[in-house]
Amino acid sequence: MAYTAENWPITAALLQFPGTDAKGTQINDADASSWAEVLTEVKEAGFANADLTDSWVRPGDLSKERLAEFKQTAGNVGIGIPVISAIRRSVIHQTDWADNLAYSHRTIDAAAELGCEVVSIGLHQAITPEQQKQLWFWTVEGYKDPVGDKEVWGNAVSRIRELGQHAADAGVLLSLEMYEDTYLGTADSSVQLVQDIGLANVGLNPDLGNLIRLHRPIEDWREMVAKTMPYSNYWHMKNYIRDEDVARDSYITMPAPMESGLINYREAFKVALSVGFQGILCTEHYGGDGLSVTASNQEYLRRHILPKSDGYALGQSQVAQGRQLPAAELAGV
Amino acid sequence: MAYTAENWPITAALLQFPGTDAKGTQINDADASSWAEVLTEVKEAGFANADLTDSWVRPGDLSKERLAEFKQTAGNVGIGIPVISAIRRSVIHQTDWADNLAYSHRTIDAAAELGCEVVSIGLHQAITPEQQKQLWFWTVEGYKDPVGDKEVWGNAVSRIRELGQHAADAGVLLSLEMYEDTYLGTADSSVQLVQDIGLANVGLNPDLGNLIRLHRPIEDWREMVAKTMPYSNYWHMKNYIRDEDVARDSYITMPAPMESGLINYREAFKVALSVGFQGILCTEHYGGDGLSVTASNQEYLRRHILPKSDGYALGQSQVAQGRQLPAAELAGV
Amino acid sequence: MAYTAENWPITAALLQFPGTDAKGTQINDADASSWAEVLTEVKEAGFANADLTDSWVRPGDLSKERLAEFKQTAGNVGIGIPVISAIRRSVIHQTDWADNLAYSHRTIDAAAELGCEVVSIGLHQAITPEQQKQLWFWTVEGYKDPVGDKEVWGNAVSRIRELGQHAADAGVLLSLEMYEDTYLGTADSSVQLVQDIGLANVGLNPDLGNLIRLHRPIEDWREMVAKTMPYSNYWHMKNYIRDEDVARDSYITMPAPMESGLINYREAFKVALSVGFQGILCTEHYGGDGLSVTASNQEYLRRHILPKSDGYALGQSQVAQGRQLPAAELAGV
Repeated sequence: MAYTAENWPITAALLQFPGTDAKGTQINDADASSWAEVLTEVKEAGFANADLTDSWVRPGDLSKERLAEFKQTAGNVGIGIPVISAIRRSVIHQTDWADNLAYSHRTIDAAAELGCEVVSIGLHQAITPEQQKQLWFWTVEGYKDPVGDKEVWGNAVSRIRELGQHAADAGVLLSLEMYEDTYLGTADSSVQLVQDIGLANVGLNPDLGNLIRLHRPIEDWREMVAKTMPYSNYWHMKNYIRDEDVARDSYITMPAPMESGLINYREAFKVALSVGFQGILCTEHYGGDGLSVTASNQEYLRRHILPKSDGYALGQSQVAQGRQLPAAELAGV
Repeated sequence: MAYTAENWPITAALLQFPGTDAKGTQINDADASSWAEVLTEVKEAGFANADLTDSWVRPGDLSKERLAEFKQTAGNVGIGIPVISAIRRSVIHQTDWADNLAYSHRTIDAAAELGCEVVSIGLHQAITPEQQKQLWFWTVEGYKDPVGDKEVWGNAVSRIRELGQHAADAGVLLSLEMYEDTYLGTADSSVQLVQDIGLANVGLNPDLGNLIRLHRPIEDWREMVAKTMPYSNYWHMKNYIRDEDVARDSYITMPAPMESGLINYREAFKVALSVGFQGILCTEHYGGDGLSVTASNQEYLRRHILPKSDGYALGQSQVAQGRQLPAAELAGV
Repeated sequence: MAYTAENWPITAALLQFPGTDAKGTQINDADASSWAEVLTEVKEAGFANADLTDSWVRPGDLSKERLAEFKQTAGNVGIGIPVISAIRRSVIHQTDWADNLAYSHRTIDAAAELGCEVVSIGLHQAITPEQQKQLWFWTVEGYKDPVGDKEVWGNAVSRIRELGQHAADAGVLLSLEMYEDTYLGTADSSVQLVQDIGLANVGLNPDLGNLIRLHRPIEDWREMVAKTMPYSNYWHMKNYIRDEDVARDSYITMPAPMESGLINYREAFKVALSVGFQGILCTEHYGGDGLSVTASNQEYLRRHILPKSDGYALGQSQVAQGRQLPAAELAGV
């Protein structure tokens, strides 16, 4: 039974909610009522599900009791948590890779405990001080993975494979978020990384918004969709408007509702179905009133983009879709 | 009986739909089921009518049997085809003008066969290779009609008049789409061309979106509306946001929903009614998910812009409006 | 009883409506039917209230009879007029200050007569000829108040205090609109001015849209919200999208719906409630179809931003809120 507009799971990203409150307290250490407040706001914006973005709460750092408290809180509010997104915890960070790897393992354990279907990770690293000074951090260059360095690439493959195997044992999909200037920064490199890892439950999170907002020439989004969707198992969706005036060396981008930005999600979604995509969708919006635009994005998807009935042709994905698969099958490529 | 918000005919442009499928087959030669798929998608987006944009299907190149099949297909889907827009078929093209003229004649015949009210043509020519390389083709210069060349202008007048007479005989309006750097590229030149042609059934299609998106100084849209609406008989409507910083030689434009772009369609429509406009409206959006934004544009028109009841003051247009007129009257200025 | 999404008063700005008609007649001198036409259009766009922006009708310049006629007209249309906004009538204008001061006094009298709760004034002056030539006037520099000039500052304080006392006697709040390069052009200066004036009924109108659209570095909107909301008693709300590319000296801004622009009104409104704000809201949009976007802005506020019920925590404002207060209390700090 394929998903339809009515039941396709869509999460709200929690990017807008800071990890510390006005008094400087980490939300991780806050009272459960603080968690309930955010989750209620998300639910009231129209969401049945949230992506537990760890810039807000880090489930991998919660004790067993606190994690149970979190699960209970979400249950009381009545919001599902089918995904955890761990942000800027690269397992090939030059000094912190071992910490990040351990954290990612704990995040997978937490995901299993919360009953999540997906954990999304990436290779992006902390925003630089120069990036922090900008209105939009992506308008200056940030961290870059070393292109062509076989050892580092190999480390990425083996460490993510280790996480993937753990995830498979836990019955969870691992999804790799695309992000500029990392090994997940181009369509070809991203696909290569998934192929090198070689586990059915490890796929891509084609967060193309991250890539089309850059103030420099970019890959064509249609080509990125064509290349990456066959390997995708989760999808951070957001959009930007973009103008280029090459003769004037001008590249202008701004956050936009999904409906009216550069990426044509109507077309992208047709491609997704044609290659068997049945992953969870996550609507995001970075900038301004992110939650309200995120809610508009969900409405746009359910009204215009998702299939009205389940009788549609669905292609065959290169990676596992959804948690229906038993753990053994998830792991066995 | 003047049109109201409820019954004013609004078509969806089919710009988003390519003329060839994934296998390279021309949609013109495709099975009728391919046509039905697109027309159904347009209908499901909320449209009762489509503008048969010939970048998708070229009715002038369909055989009598295939044209009948097209008509039948649209009827089965339940969508009206009151207009054909022929794109980039200039009748003053230096080498292809005779072919383009013949094609335009065939398009008028096809329009009559399909029961269309309007055929829209223009003087714009193929996008240049340099334009094709850009994110938005209008950010570099394209083809230009020779300003001040009386012979070429005369050819434009006489050839379009020939088409106009054919259209009048067929009971069809001919509408001339405004487009930069052609004889239809400024308000004054566009009006002059219509006046020189001098047929009641030949008017303008004031597609001002084409003009306000340019990365250079532009005519004021209010002045263009004031000058062109009295001569308009069809209307491609779309919008762009625009920023200018003259001191920095910066001109930035991006496609936007009609409601929130630079052109104030509320004000433009008041002018249109004041000069007797009762033409069909076509909502367009070039860029991103064109069809969804086009659907939002239709909603915006019906909710905010079109008159709630038919008791409004309607001025007297300089050109014929609508197909109610008998062919004789259409031709007789 | 605190305001809720259902009953929070929201006015439409009338910026879109010109002060003269097509024949050059001042709307101030026009027949009441011209007033009714505009007020009806605003009401049909979904508003129960309008901000009587004096670029359209100047109530301070209406005779007693005409003012009564205006009040009657609004009553017949069924639209409330709880606010007058007087624009570009600086009481520290080098030559016209006395006229502007007298006009402002008359505007307060007219407000009392109309039953208004608020009069909004500012220190901005006429747009320069150079500004008038631009697509958006804020892309070049305009008039500037003399920074650090104690005499002029003192005049601003004493003259506005004089207006504030008059307003208090009339049972009206006086609100000072923030605007670039005036003494109300930064958060700190705006707060200082209110403090120096020192009347409970004189507060700020934090029209931050005026400030974030500038083509130069700007104050962070979050800091401006934090500093100014405790002193605010009315709120012109509008939004802009903005891109900065500092290395390229590029600052791009364009008018945007409140939901999708740079300022996060969800977050700003939480701050507002936390510091006791209960002022009237005015939705604006400068550019394109201002009234339709203004209507969308109202829907956004009622749906997403305003509190669903009145059981919320409300802080203590530094200035008086609402007209409930008796005149004596308004005046007594």
